[in-house]
Amino acid sequence: MNTAAVADFRTYPLISALASVELLPDQLRVQWADGRASPFHHQWLRDNCPCPLCVYNVTREQVLEIVDVDEDLTALSVHIDQGCLCVEWHGGHSSRFDPGWLRAHAYDDESRAERRDAKAKPKLWDSRFELPVFDYAALMEDPNTLLQWLLALRDSGLTQVSGVPTEPGSLALIAKRISFIRESNFGVLFNVQSKADADSNAYTAFNLPLHSDLPTRELQPGLQFLHCLVNDADGGESIFVDGFAIAHALRDENPEAFRVLCEIPVEFRNKDRHSDYRRLAPIIALDALGEVAEIRMANFLRGPFEASVEQMPLLYHAYRRFIAMTREDRFRLVKRLNPGELWCFDNRRTLHARHAFDPASGARHFQGCYIDRDELLSRILVLQR
Amino acid sequence: MNTAAVADFRTYPLISALASVELLPDQLRVQWADGRASPFHHQWLRDNCPCPLCVYNVTREQVLEIVDVDEDLTALSVHIDQGCLCVEWHGGHSSRFDPGWLRAHAYDDESRAERRDAKAKPKLWDSRFELPVFDYAALMEDPNTLLQWLLALRDSGLTQVSGVPTEPGSLALIAKRISFIRESNFGVLFNVQSKADADSNAYTAFNLPLHSDLPTRELQPGLQFLHCLVNDADGGESIFVDGFAIAHALRDENPEAFRVLCEIPVEFRNKDRHSDYRRLAPIIALDALGEVAEIRMANFLRGPFEASVEQMPLLYHAYRRFIAMTREDRFRLVKRLNPGELWCFDNRRTLHARHAFDPASGARHFQGCYIDRDELLSRILVLQR
Repeated sequence: MNTAAVADFRTYPLISALASVELLPDQLRVQWADGRASPFHHQWLRDNCPCPLCVYNVTREQVLEIVDVDEDLTALSVHIDQGCLCVEWHGGHSSRFDPGWLRAHAYDDESRAERRDAKAKPKLWDSRFELPVFDYAALMEDPNTLLQWLLALRDSGLTQVSGVPTEPGSLALIAKRISFIRESNFGVLFNVQSKADADSNAYTAFNLPLHSDLPTRELQPGLQFLHCLVNDADGGESIFVDGFAIAHALRDENPEAFRVLCEIPVEFRNKDRHSDYRRLAPIIALDALGEVAEIRMANFLRGPFEASVEQMPLLYHAYRRFIAMTREDRFRLVKRLNPGELWCFDNRRTLHARHAFDPASGARHFQGCYIDRDELLSRILVLQR
Repeated sequence: MNTAAVADFRTYPLISALASVELLPDQLRVQWADGRASPFHHQWLRDNCPCPLCVYNVTREQVLEIVDVDEDLTALSVHIDQGCLCVEWHGGHSSRFDPGWLRAHAYDDESRAERRDAKAKPKLWDSRFELPVFDYAALMEDPNTLLQWLLALRDSGLTQVSGVPTEPGSLALIAKRISFIRESNFGVLFNVQSKADADSNAYTAFNLPLHSDLPTRELQPGLQFLHCLVNDADGGESIFVDGFAIAHALRDENPEAFRVLCEIPVEFRNKDRHSDYRRLAPIIALDALGEVAEIRMANFLRGPFEASVEQMPLLYHAYRRFIAMTREDRFRLVKRLNPGELWCFDNRRTLHARHAFDPASGARHFQGCYIDRDELLSRILVLQR
């Protein structure tokens, strides 16, 4: 019973019991019943003391600052009590650690590798992708359907929702099932219509090549929604590719081009009478483990390439190759969106495009909005509690 | 006269005239009147053709996709006409480049180094910082004062505004002189008051150690505003340090600790009944050139360190050193904020803190909000046009 510890919203199931603990000069060595051994440094344990003096029990936030504890502090004694690890510190403080929490935060090599392997990984897709379609009413009412939708967004990066009301503004209702909307200079909800005074090619009737939205910002929006209210015009089909799948294929087929797109940054620009955004970043971003984490791409928002004279031909070659791949049938999903349907996709992974449409043939009105990836991941964690 | 080219909102002054141009197999070699030589690859020039067929003149966005042009395309002929570089392409297209634009985008080594050197650099400060104070009425009315304020935010990262109305919500008026506000789970405007049911230590009367706000998000907010409406309580002085100055000092005084804080990521966590944010990132982020670009720090939002058993003592040593430096008088600016004053600072650079206050001694009410760095930089560019 760890009643003194501050309640968290997370639970840490008991994976294995604490079998024994050994006190060493710089660390404790915990032996688990399933055979794993986990060292914990004295400093780490003192830092993570969950007692109400160290963590404020209303906010569950730490009030202890480790710098206020001696850097050489060591445990005076350790023992296991009712399954918990108990530490008495030199100088008088004592700490009690729940074994489930301790195992979840163990940093021996095996525990760290296990957590890394357990992380969700993108499920890559191509033209044969079986598009996950969700029902609006179910998403609005049933938390489990909502969770399944959000997991599909996280893992596959492309979904459709059907049965959405076609009144303008309805999009906000479903977006708010996840969180508040991320505003941009185009508004909270933006209207995708052909306009005479367009401030982006998106607001024309042109063919739009495959792109991410707002590559001109430091953080591209995580999720993009496109909600069809009216679609009576000829043309204007939506096209999607899995940018991660293309990046992986490029890494296999042309590793040098892949390297160039990861390493040479490109400037994206978006400017109108009231704003002037510029962002220099590579087209393919990798995470700390070298995995593809983001695609940034919009030919119509790209500034002139800036690279050394030696690198410039390599950059053009790599850029052309990537664009050419986005045009290959093997990667492309093409589908016309009907009124009452919406696309929701990972804007940093799933590139989107549309065929040109003929505004003279009928009206076409989509509304869109953005939500950041932080909000998606937070909502998933809350729904999974 | 470059009348065929699509108008941009930017101007490119003529720095030096085009003296001559030489046609080589893979590039043109431009010789400028001031002696500089700039190579331009055929592919780069064709890609950047500013004619109305290649750039849509309403949106000023490119419609040409370079992949639709042969990778081996070369110029048939080149000449200089009325100061502009004119290229006739094999296959029939022709392009005309303004010499000011061309010089601004030249990518010879000298031109690139010149642009890199011309970029704004942070002005580091310490406890002797002469705080820039701006007058609310002037910011609301005079675009030049507004620009000076924004440049101070960009370059020094800490400013004060005085003469602000003390009605709740007034903060939004001044924030919107820059752009829309970035919403978070704490709202569009957040109220900093001591609350019984606080969902963050910020909403208690505690001492708060030096921190950045929302380190739990992928992109920490760029600007933070804190507006004082009422401050009758004893204590609660604001404390600021220039996190970039501390990072630079750490790099000089303890390069190994600096390296550890750049390389080993730390998880920040913020959780309540409705949200659960987590972000793994290093405390010091460097840009592509190795310069300090961001500090991420909030002890009360930090999760347990996760690093290899070998690295853990190094991480604690480095973290302790950084925190200890934030407490050194040489870096700290301490000042009490009065009603009608507000702090506006770079949340990714300037760490902020407050002394504990005594809620029994009187009321204390601040309002805050965030704006992203993209919006600050865009607004500066628009005001500089």
